[in-house]
Amino acid sequence: MGKGMILGTMIHGAGERRTDWRHPAIPSDASVSFDFYKQQALVSERGKFDFVFVADAMYITPQSTPHYLNRFEPLTILSALAAVTSRIGLVATLSSTYSEPYAAARQFASLDLLSGGRAGWNAVTTGLGGTALNFGHRRDMHPEHGIRYRMAAEFTEVVQKLWDSWEDDAFVRDKKSGVFFEPEKMHEADHDGEFFSVKGALNIARSPQGQPVIFQAGKSEDGRRFAADTADVVFAIDGELEAAREYYADMKKRAARAGRNPDGLLVIQGISPIVAETEEEAFRIREELTATVSLEEALADLGRHFDHHDFTQYDPDAPFPDLGGMGANGFQSDTERIIRGARRDGLTLREAAMREAAPKTPFIGTPEQVADRIEEWHRTRAADGFILIANLPVLLENFVDGVVPILRERGLFREEYGGTTLRDHLGLPFRENRHARVAEASLV
Amino acid sequence: MGKGMILGTMIHGAGERRTDWRHPAIPSDASVSFDFYKQQALVSERGKFDFVFVADAMYITPQSTPHYLNRFEPLTILSALAAVTSRIGLVATLSSTYSEPYAAARQFASLDLLSGGRAGWNAVTTGLGGTALNFGHRRDMHPEHGIRYRMAAEFTEVVQKLWDSWEDDAFVRDKKSGVFFEPEKMHEADHDGEFFSVKGALNIARSPQGQPVIFQAGKSEDGRRFAADTADVVFAIDGELEAAREYYADMKKRAARAGRNPDGLLVIQGISPIVAETEEEAFRIREELTATVSLEEALADLGRHFDHHDFTQYDPDAPFPDLGGMGANGFQSDTERIIRGARRDGLTLREAAMREAAPKTPFIGTPEQVADRIEEWHRTRAADGFILIANLPVLLENFVDGVVPILRERGLFREEYGGTTLRDHLGLPFRENRHARVAEASLV
Repeated sequence: MGKGMILGTMIHGAGERRTDWRHPAIPSDASVSFDFYKQQALVSERGKFDFVFVADAMYITPQSTPHYLNRFEPLTILSALAAVTSRIGLVATLSSTYSEPYAAARQFASLDLLSGGRAGWNAVTTGLGGTALNFGHRRDMHPEHGIRYRMAAEFTEVVQKLWDSWEDDAFVRDKKSGVFFEPEKMHEADHDGEFFSVKGALNIARSPQGQPVIFQAGKSEDGRRFAADTADVVFAIDGELEAAREYYADMKKRAARAGRNPDGLLVIQGISPIVAETEEEAFRIREELTATVSLEEALADLGRHFDHHDFTQYDPDAPFPDLGGMGANGFQSDTERIIRGARRDGLTLREAAMREAAPKTPFIGTPEQVADRIEEWHRTRAADGFILIANLPVLLENFVDGVVPILRERGLFREEYGGTTLRDHLGLPFRENRHARVAEASLV
Repeated sequence: MGKGMILGTMIHGAGERRTDWRHPAIPSDASVSFDFYKQQALVSERGKFDFVFVADAMYITPQSTPHYLNRFEPLTILSALAAVTSRIGLVATLSSTYSEPYAAARQFASLDLLSGGRAGWNAVTTGLGGTALNFGHRRDMHPEHGIRYRMAAEFTEVVQKLWDSWEDDAFVRDKKSGVFFEPEKMHEADHDGEFFSVKGALNIARSPQGQPVIFQAGKSEDGRRFAADTADVVFAIDGELEAAREYYADMKKRAARAGRNPDGLLVIQGISPIVAETEEEAFRIREELTATVSLEEALADLGRHFDHHDFTQYDPDAPFPDLGGMGANGFQSDTERIIRGARRDGLTLREAAMREAAPKTPFIGTPEQVADRIEEWHRTRAADGFILIANLPVLLENFVDGVVPILRERGLFREEYGGTTLRDHLGLPFRENRHARVAEASLV
């Protein structure tokens, strides 16, 4: 479980939900407001959080959720945040399906170096099939789910090879002798695989944490296998204690099966806490958020999980429609969850859509109540920590100023940062360079 | 010539020249020091410069110049600098041969928005043939010179289409009505060309300057044509007044031939001024810089212009070798210049290599002397302005504190920033959205 509970903030601009931006307490241009991102990062750093996190996608239609239509690109905004923060980790989402490993390795290494070792990469394979339309002639077809994960595994392998291009003491920079680096400590990747052929070396050194931290959130079988093999931090948004505990146990078991120490794979949950001074106030905020959603919007939002399927064609008050194989190559885990839930509870389409659209969280109430819930999830091995998706700025502040002090009193969360890198915060060891290990081994 | 003289700084870490890092006055880790980049940007902003500029390349060998081996990636470092500066423009190099237009358009738009309209893109086609080895399986062959420029033209067309995805008043964000944007002000790129197929729309809005400014530095016939058609700012490093004047006249003529107002294509020169309180001190600094170069290093540096050709195989004191067609697909304009110079002056290989390696600039001397030279170049239409490649931090400071006040006294350079965007600084108009123009025209 690392050194203690993990806490991070997903900075999500004008909101993850289609209608969050209509709430009076959120600036409706938050997704493209540097001041908003900076403020959320500074509040999170004031709380001594482990990291801030920026999600991503690369395909929109007029039906997309407002935040998706117009938002900062993750690596640029996190690089800007690196300059106005000093300790908090910076986790950017980047697709292994629609990027080049050499370019990706560089950008993360650059963020890692300029932030003093605070970078993380949330590796995604891109669920939105339409993305291929924005990357045509080089990759004309959206690869299917299984291939995307094979690509992701190879992509990550290449990126990590490139991140080890230079041993940590390669750059001696001796002005007198004129020796800038030791040639035997420069290593080409020399990768030639199924999807990528990359020579190297990377043109940037490693950071104080060795390599950026790898995050992953795939919940499908392929996604879980990839995470168990490769990720440092894996996360899900399960919403319920039992589901979270199952996910936690499964991921730890998979890590062990992959030959790893299960403590080295941190399993965390994305939660959307609604904290206020009183329980009444918390539920009032929830009501305000729900009140912004119309059925039409809820249906469009539902469609996003099914590759922008048009749900307005069905009677909203008939049972949830039979969609055949729909969504099998989209955000697989979401589609399965929604369909399963609708069948289990015998929901109409309207009910399923509103259930999906309404903010629903067990982490609602007073600081004490939410701290209790957080502690319960942590203690019963449902999560090593949490990513807060607190769209309203006031909800993040209430968590930092209300819940975090209680977690500290209970010895569950740090008083101060103990180190300087994201790995330090997470209790993950410095990532040794594979070539340095080889060199040492050969001396024995 | 715009509103006045243009001044920018190329932040070049540990130095453009192979041995600059050995000079006592430069931090040898400058290429990966955020503090160094920040300091250079702040000094430039104190001087009210138009922009800072970061060059790039994506292929290294053990023979590469030290700065190339280990440096920040341009978009990440400039995004970080955006957060610690307030007015100065931020120009990043990105290759149209080894990037995706959708990803590139996003990153520049993101930098542009988060900086309040200060982004510029230096479009390069990538001269280093080895780069293909780092981007294998998607682009296995390094495209030849002419194809690279055809790609660049189409790439830029796509990027600019994507930058016009949203009209400036598309996002109304009316919380009451629930209207986030006006659908008729969202425009797909719908591009399907020789090299790229990109649907759009881009998932980020335009900035206060409309579109990022496009820089270009191709000196070949293809490069000049591309710049005349597409660039806002074109630059060269000619080193001599006559060559600069020829280049200036040629580019302005080409802009006119392309149907543009020649004032809309700014032609600037990269210079490496060596300014000190006295002439003696300036020449002493130049000597210090030359003293760090060995023949071996000079030959390796020369090789970089010839696709890493090994020049140590030749007798250094024999005439400059006949290289056949060598370099015809590399940094074409550099190879031509070096070969032509060596033949014209009957140089040995050693002489040609040391000529290339030694710091040579007409902009050397006291602040008054250098200001005179600057004024002469500007007045005689050799340049609309200058990019300073001042590797030693002290040389940038000497220019800002010594030369700039003189230029101001003479009315050649601004006292204060007159606007907030890079276009404002350069005297370039706000870039209208093509769709907004169409809408207006249809009303007439």
